[in-house]
Amino acid sequence: MRAREILFLFAIGAAGGLAGDAGNVQSGMTRYLDGAGPQIWNSAWWFPILVGLGTVAVGVTRLSLGAPRPGFDFRIGIGAIAAVTAIYAISDAAFWNELNDSIGKVVLCTALAVLLACFIADVPGVLCGLGAALAGPAVEMAIVQVDLSSYAPMADGLFGVALWLPPLYFAFGVAVARITELMVARRTSAT
Amino acid sequence: MRAREILFLFAIGAAGGLAGDAGNVQSGMTRYLDGAGPQIWNSAWWFPILVGLGTVAVGVTRLSLGAPRPGFDFRIGIGAIAAVTAIYAISDAAFWNELNDSIGKVVLCTALAVLLACFIADVPGVLCGLGAALAGPAVEMAIVQVDLSSYAPMADGLFGVALWLPPLYFAFGVAVARITELMVARRTSAT
Amino acid sequence: MRAREILFLFAIGAAGGLAGDAGNVQSGMTRYLDGAGPQIWNSAWWFPILVGLGTVAVGVTRLSLGAPRPGFDFRIGIGAIAAVTAIYAISDAAFWNELNDSIGKVVLCTALAVLLACFIADVPGVLCGLGAALAGPAVEMAIVQVDLSSYAPMADGLFGVALWLPPLYFAFGVAVARITELMVARRTSAT
Repeated sequence: MRAREILFLFAIGAAGGLAGDAGNVQSGMTRYLDGAGPQIWNSAWWFPILVGLGTVAVGVTRLSLGAPRPGFDFRIGIGAIAAVTAIYAISDAAFWNELNDSIGKVVLCTALAVLLACFIADVPGVLCGLGAALAGPAVEMAIVQVDLSSYAPMADGLFGVALWLPPLYFAFGVAVARITELMVARRTSAT
Repeated sequence: MRAREILFLFAIGAAGGLAGDAGNVQSGMTRYLDGAGPQIWNSAWWFPILVGLGTVAVGVTRLSLGAPRPGFDFRIGIGAIAAVTAIYAISDAAFWNELNDSIGKVVLCTALAVLLACFIADVPGVLCGLGAALAGPAVEMAIVQVDLSSYAPMADGLFGVALWLPPLYFAFGVAVARITELMVARRTSAT
Repeated sequence: MRAREILFLFAIGAAGGLAGDAGNVQSGMTRYLDGAGPQIWNSAWWFPILVGLGTVAVGVTRLSLGAPRPGFDFRIGIGAIAAVTAIYAISDAAFWNELNDSIGKVVLCTALAVLLACFIADVPGVLCGLGAALAGPAVEMAIVQVDLSSYAPMADGLFGVALWLPPLYFAFGVAVARITELMVARRTSAT
């Protein structure tokens, strides 16, 4: 990948992470603890950096898994970002009057993540999604373990993090893989 | 239909019904009453069987209504299942602080069911959806009448069942009709 | 535009406005004040008229902005109406136990509006959406200013109206622009 492509992936990951996390913090779904450091919007300063780095890592992984599909259409990329952001925002919602890991919320986030994959993913994209669904929650578990943040008491059923986190990261991985394909396709179409 | 196709329809109907109903029961939206018998996950044992049989019935109906469209793409089938599951999960949500038949929830479920039909239905598929929207709630009204289950007090405005039930069954009928078409198309593509 | 096309746009705008506003009023999200006049369903009599006129205005604007795309498929039009109605219905929902301008709700409505545009909009359609996102909330601010209606106390952060109103109107403008294109394309296909 070219330097400006890496910067672009980092920037959209950081921006999307900030917007989604702002809603999570405002709703009380997640909380930064003493020692998490200075804030950007509602997030600790290191949160958008981690999401941005994760976005670059998914992009690199996608390219290592096989040739990207040709064809550039920026609407696919914007739509993919919008879809992940929508799932992130749904994770704020209190289904039946409390912030929790309700089956309904987890099933809804999972169904929407799968629907996104049906629209845009190829096999390497699904692998990127699965990788993100493993690595993302694992990093968040570690952050919770070292007392930098915590999830709401009824929404921490997966080793301290929320049960809707794996489908959210799956959608994230699928979307970033597709955006990476579009970036490569744009090189050719711009030539 | 071939035996394994019938089994397949039964299995996805039973599995989807269990996942959706688990959320409805957990949220208090639906409740099984004394006499409903032993449970599977959160449902009475007969619930997944009824949904599985209904799924097979929709598939048979679809084939009797005209030739299925050609073209096999398993992503359409998975996406259809995900869309119905998403509507099912939304039916758990307490819009404005109680479990009810709020206009917003009924309109949302209806709009999403219509959107699904716009993406995947042909005319026989719409007829399957309408048939399911009549038959499904009718069966559930009978189940409520014989005191095997009940809906939450504010969510039973349609003769004892929820007002969002017809759009959910419409989406179910549309999705199963499309999946049946895909099964038939797969026979040819596999040959 | 032909007279019956103008009537058609007016009618779907008025009907959609009534269905969406019914949920907003029922949930307590919006309230008509003394002096707003007699009601139709849950709305003041002038509300569907304003939405209908706004729908016609968007249609006229779309045609003034360039040639509509060819190709008639009524499913695109119905799907567009369903998508806007879904966003309208989501605006009723109490995210985390109160009716408010939560970041999650505003981000969700914005993401879904953008997703709709990615599916159906061309450049003039996006301009219609942006115009509607400016004009619609401005008219509603004026209505609130003259004490004909009000938004819930925690959901009036944009000069008296809700923060999710601009994305809702953006989706409305994008959908009406596309429906106008389909109406023009239908003239040719019907010939």
